[in-house]
Amino acid sequence: MKMYIECIPCYARQTIEAAVMVTDDPRLREKIIRAALRKASEVPFDKTPTHIGMEIHRIIRKLVGDIDPYFELKDIYNRKALELYPYMKKLVDQSPNRLETSVRLAIAGNIIDFGISHSNNEIKLKKIITETMKKPFAVNDLSELINALEDAHHILYIADNAGEIVFDRVFVEEIPDHRVRVTFAVKGHHVLNDATMKDALDTGLTDVVRVIDNGSDAPGTILETCSKQFQDTFKAADLVIAKGQGNYETLSNSGGKCFFLLKAKCPVIARHFGVEVGNIIVKKEDPPEKSS
Amino acid sequence: MKMYIECIPCYARQTIEAAVMVTDDPRLREKIIRAALRKASEVPFDKTPTHIGMEIHRIIRKLVGDIDPYFELKDIYNRKALELYPYMKKLVDQSPNRLETSVRLAIAGNIIDFGISHSNNEIKLKKIITETMKKPFAVNDLSELINALEDAHHILYIADNAGEIVFDRVFVEEIPDHRVRVTFAVKGHHVLNDATMKDALDTGLTDVVRVIDNGSDAPGTILETCSKQFQDTFKAADLVIAKGQGNYETLSNSGGKCFFLLKAKCPVIARHFGVEVGNIIVKKEDPPEKSS
Repeated sequence: MKMYIECIPCYARQTIEAAVMVTDDPRLREKIIRAALRKASEVPFDKTPTHIGMEIHRIIRKLVGDIDPYFELKDIYNRKALELYPYMKKLVDQSPNRLETSVRLAIAGNIIDFGISHSNNEIKLKKIITETMKKPFAVNDLSELINALEDAHHILYIADNAGEIVFDRVFVEEIPDHRVRVTFAVKGHHVLNDATMKDALDTGLTDVVRVIDNGSDAPGTILETCSKQFQDTFKAADLVIAKGQGNYETLSNSGGKCFFLLKAKCPVIARHFGVEVGNIIVKKEDPPEKSS
Repeated sequence: MKMYIECIPCYARQTIEAAVMVTDDPRLREKIIRAALRKASEVPFDKTPTHIGMEIHRIIRKLVGDIDPYFELKDIYNRKALELYPYMKKLVDQSPNRLETSVRLAIAGNIIDFGISHSNNEIKLKKIITETMKKPFAVNDLSELINALEDAHHILYIADNAGEIVFDRVFVEEIPDHRVRVTFAVKGHHVLNDATMKDALDTGLTDVVRVIDNGSDAPGTILETCSKQFQDTFKAADLVIAKGQGNYETLSNSGGKCFFLLKAKCPVIARHFGVEVGNIIVKKEDPPEKSS
């Protein structure tokens, strides 16, 4: 998905939020903001929004060093989500359709996103779960996903955020033979509150499924920035499940084998899908365009 | 008032809205946005937000020519406000405190602002009037303003937006001897939906009060960009009434003789005043700081 022009003020906002988080020094904040605006003025408009995000966070790291402004928040949300893990397992156990319930939980967890809005740190996870259980899918390719899950030999599950991966864990555990069939991928480097290997270890994902990191610092999946191991795993997979907006933006035209699970969290993506902000989506990737 | 860093994404949004209004050509839109972001990356952070606004609109004019994207909207709101003029006069006539009621009307009109949010074109003016009539002032220097109005010989009334100036007219007409004492100033060049001489003519302001233009294209009052006539009028005034955020930003430290009438329309200005968004404000300018 290419950038929309409305993405630019949103990234300016993100930069400022990140600048405020990484330093108290107004001169350094100013320096970050200036550099990010200059970069935004140069970024090709035919790239995905995730590309700007990656560039901005690279600039911040270059200016303030490789500190992780979201370190504590990620830890807090991993623990909040882990506290809900028994409750989520019970919801699945009591459900007439375990797989659908676990997919809904995975989507509910997608609300934990500090790229979209920092004010998210006040979100009430249990309330979100309850809402997401009964919400209709605004884009509904669920039955195709369930069929694909039956047939696939190599499933690549591309995670999005810390905290959210506990919700993903509940879904992954419902996939038959997940220890053999599923590879769970996290980011290669911290960026926003995206899940890294540390989060996978802290939330027990590594105990239930093979976890790899993608070698990249993009807040989505820009394949050319990923490690060879990840690229090979992506190629070998016959089914890819990708979480959240960043992964949709970067993989929506990657060959046709992806399913995207997400909440539409900003007006741009909502309009792109023809849905409302807050709607939940299970979207099968469109088949690749045939070259004529 | 100096810029806050949160002003930057807001100006990025404003640029995009303006780019969308002035051209359908995606390449030209891109060019505008790139140039505006580059300019925003260079603008000194100790300037007022209005300075960036002025620079951005200069860039747009340089790229697309001197067209006025808000021409039609200004006309629509002048006419909408004129339709309400008899109703507003009746409100004043029936009021136990004519001057306060007319001040409240002037502040109510400040909602017509397409710099803050373009979606404002759906605002219901009559509803805003009703709300503003009974709202408490969040900053209340009204009695000082009323005293100052009694004493002043030369009153300079600095307008903000088209449409809004009809509301200002109702207030100006309540100032005793306004034909002699009041000079009403509009912008020297179109910028956003700020009122220009055309709007003053279209709404009958020129029939009731001396109107001058300030010779400037800034969406506020940056004195060094104004004409000598305006600067002289400003110097000669013993009372200045300035409408809206842009005028507050640029004149809040201009010598101590201003009163600012505005609605707090964005979170930054609301926080600056320690009030809520939507609150109404009559603020006497702080006295100039003594040099020690």
